[in-house]
Amino acid sequence: MNLNRIAQTLRQFNHIGFSEQGVNRLAFSPDEIKVKELFHKLCSEAGMTVRTDECGNVIARREGKHPEWPPVAVGSHLDTVFNGGQYDGTTGVVLGLELVRSLNDKGVQTDHPIEVICFTSEESSRFGISTIGSKAMAGKLDLEKLLKVKDHNGVTFSEAIGQAGLHSKRLENASRAGLEMKAFFEVHIEQGPRLEMEGKKIGVVTGIAAPTRLNVTVKGKASHSGTTPMSYRKDALLGAAEIILNVEQEVKRNGGNNTVATVGDCMVAPGAMNVVPEKAELIIDIRGTSYEAKSKVLNSLMTCFIRIEKKRGLDINWEVLSDEKPVILKEEVVDSLAESCEQLGMPYSRMTSGAGHDAMNMAAICPTGLIFIPCKDGLSHHKDEFALLEDIGTGGALLESEVLKWACQNNNPLAKCKNGGDFKLRHIT
Amino acid sequence: MNLNRIAQTLRQFNHIGFSEQGVNRLAFSPDEIKVKELFHKLCSEAGMTVRTDECGNVIARREGKHPEWPPVAVGSHLDTVFNGGQYDGTTGVVLGLELVRSLNDKGVQTDHPIEVICFTSEESSRFGISTIGSKAMAGKLDLEKLLKVKDHNGVTFSEAIGQAGLHSKRLENASRAGLEMKAFFEVHIEQGPRLEMEGKKIGVVTGIAAPTRLNVTVKGKASHSGTTPMSYRKDALLGAAEIILNVEQEVKRNGGNNTVATVGDCMVAPGAMNVVPEKAELIIDIRGTSYEAKSKVLNSLMTCFIRIEKKRGLDINWEVLSDEKPVILKEEVVDSLAESCEQLGMPYSRMTSGAGHDAMNMAAICPTGLIFIPCKDGLSHHKDEFALLEDIGTGGALLESEVLKWACQNNNPLAKCKNGGDFKLRHIT
Repeated sequence: MNLNRIAQTLRQFNHIGFSEQGVNRLAFSPDEIKVKELFHKLCSEAGMTVRTDECGNVIARREGKHPEWPPVAVGSHLDTVFNGGQYDGTTGVVLGLELVRSLNDKGVQTDHPIEVICFTSEESSRFGISTIGSKAMAGKLDLEKLLKVKDHNGVTFSEAIGQAGLHSKRLENASRAGLEMKAFFEVHIEQGPRLEMEGKKIGVVTGIAAPTRLNVTVKGKASHSGTTPMSYRKDALLGAAEIILNVEQEVKRNGGNNTVATVGDCMVAPGAMNVVPEKAELIIDIRGTSYEAKSKVLNSLMTCFIRIEKKRGLDINWEVLSDEKPVILKEEVVDSLAESCEQLGMPYSRMTSGAGHDAMNMAAICPTGLIFIPCKDGLSHHKDEFALLEDIGTGGALLESEVLKWACQNNNPLAKCKNGGDFKLRHIT
Repeated sequence: MNLNRIAQTLRQFNHIGFSEQGVNRLAFSPDEIKVKELFHKLCSEAGMTVRTDECGNVIARREGKHPEWPPVAVGSHLDTVFNGGQYDGTTGVVLGLELVRSLNDKGVQTDHPIEVICFTSEESSRFGISTIGSKAMAGKLDLEKLLKVKDHNGVTFSEAIGQAGLHSKRLENASRAGLEMKAFFEVHIEQGPRLEMEGKKIGVVTGIAAPTRLNVTVKGKASHSGTTPMSYRKDALLGAAEIILNVEQEVKRNGGNNTVATVGDCMVAPGAMNVVPEKAELIIDIRGTSYEAKSKVLNSLMTCFIRIEKKRGLDINWEVLSDEKPVILKEEVVDSLAESCEQLGMPYSRMTSGAGHDAMNMAAICPTGLIFIPCKDGLSHHKDEFALLEDIGTGGALLESEVLKWACQNNNPLAKCKNGGDFKLRHIT
């Protein structure tokens, strides 16, 4: 791992779409296409064979001793949210490239081929659907839904990929489900505060939370704020406030450590100083890696809705927008990553991911590992998103060590691979 | 009291500014000027001398036996809110006119002169300031503030009254403070649900609540709703929800029966499904006829703010926008009205007014009575605002009986006025 080279490559990628307000490389925008072209070029220069699949994922291959053996893949994404940061996704792609450059430096040839993948359209900012590229690769695309969506300018997904020379009819050919892949690894910034606050350098992800989302509408009765006695009111906002506090209470009571719940918005109508609120609308996001715990929270909330409705004479309706199953990563991979951390002397935590990642789709088709590194203040999707170069290097060192384990025969790089064991933490700080 | 004539006059006034969406006669709009011209014409036809004062209030005078004696005045307003109803204000003006017509029918001449006043600009909808006309008459205008305000189209108050032939330099001449007025009475729809729910026909108002209003800003920290553990959050909306429930709790605990408090709006930023709320802004309206009770609620809320701030690591700031003193109506007038109700066999309640009225300004310059009649579902400021003709008639009968008490020598209409005692409830149903 060469820290200077990592820094330089990050700069090269982030030069594209950069502005004072943040980085803008929205899915299939000219700047995302441009950044994938740069990735293509840099991979070619590192000696890899590069192809773009039917969904726009760029796949670079470093041949192994046994080309017919299933590849070990690494990667992440280069697209960003609107006014995004320089590390979310980009870090993982840069470390994939650096892994190959480092192996080239050391003259290591692995038994299995290695692939570095730049997934397309990981962020949902443009089309409202996330991880499109990895969903396509895992054969999990909901084509019907995807072909209906439009961006804010009314451009359909089909039109957008058409401009990149792709065709919606061939999208499904990007699937590699059922084809043998040895393993997949992704390094990503945590996007949360845990590692930083706990002084850890690595998060070994055990599972990826899935959201359960609902809209709740509380209906009361508008009346004059001066002339309506408290006992005659049907105040929708009072009902909503009880729900908001119950969300916190129920997730603490029923959710366990890895479940979180958030009321992200509360919209009041008519919203005037002199009118008792008639309506309040809430959006609720429950996430966790235990589907059972999420369901428990959801069920207890429904009981709260009915109780509050009765108590306050309100009319409460809710709609479950999504109720996804969490992804649990294979114990074999998690344990192997933890073992590597211990061997390399890296302070680490086993933790869950509250956000979705390409890794969660890849987990459906091969053993998958997700590695978190700390980011400043847990901040992400923001121009001030930041990760220390040293921490990125630590993530890269773990990735290299782990990939060699999986890409070399008998999973023993020290025995089988030249220079395989040379990844002490001290070498990269 | 002639119910048919009342209904017809209501129709005549409400023909002006009528639409399917409600009645629109905003302060000093062409339609408010037009409706005041109609009032002028109808008063002249009823034999009164009519003048418009320097603020646009129309004052019609029916001479008494002693023209030099101070007048007994009645009245209300004909301006409306945007898309308002047909009864708020209009009822009181129509009943003033009907009072004079009824006295004409009966050939009663009072000792004191009688005035029917149509106050201008009672509603704050156009300029954000309410009861401008009665404030001017009571010598309570804040001219500096008034001359700064503009309507939604950028028209200043000076420009608006200029179009009605008035001049801001002469506004203060509308004051009748210090000049002797015998009494003032206003009939108004309740704009609340109490009378209807309690089966009463008359509300004898003992005091008019004044609002204490505040803005509260709760600042927390935005973070990812999936990746931020519950214990690491600074969720502004959770703090706001606690405040909302505390407002209800504290007014119930400290406010007594005549104090109410409302959180009318809650605005959340950034307001997204996947972001822990960074900011929540609340608007709070506390009203009551006891300034002490209002202050107690306000003080206990401030203690809550500090407790919640500390408990949740939030930053809570508040600004008191107004903290007005309630108006207590003279016991002498209240008792006299109650006595009249009993004599006339009208089921009544002594009650407070949560909303402001022209009567609250007139109370500063003479003994003042405010009479409420029921309105359907407590609804007001709405196209569906409704009061039964019979209930309006009951209010009119009480007004007539009471005015005769005050306008006739020794306050004894039965002894001094011809036909003075002829106001049994049965006559108007």
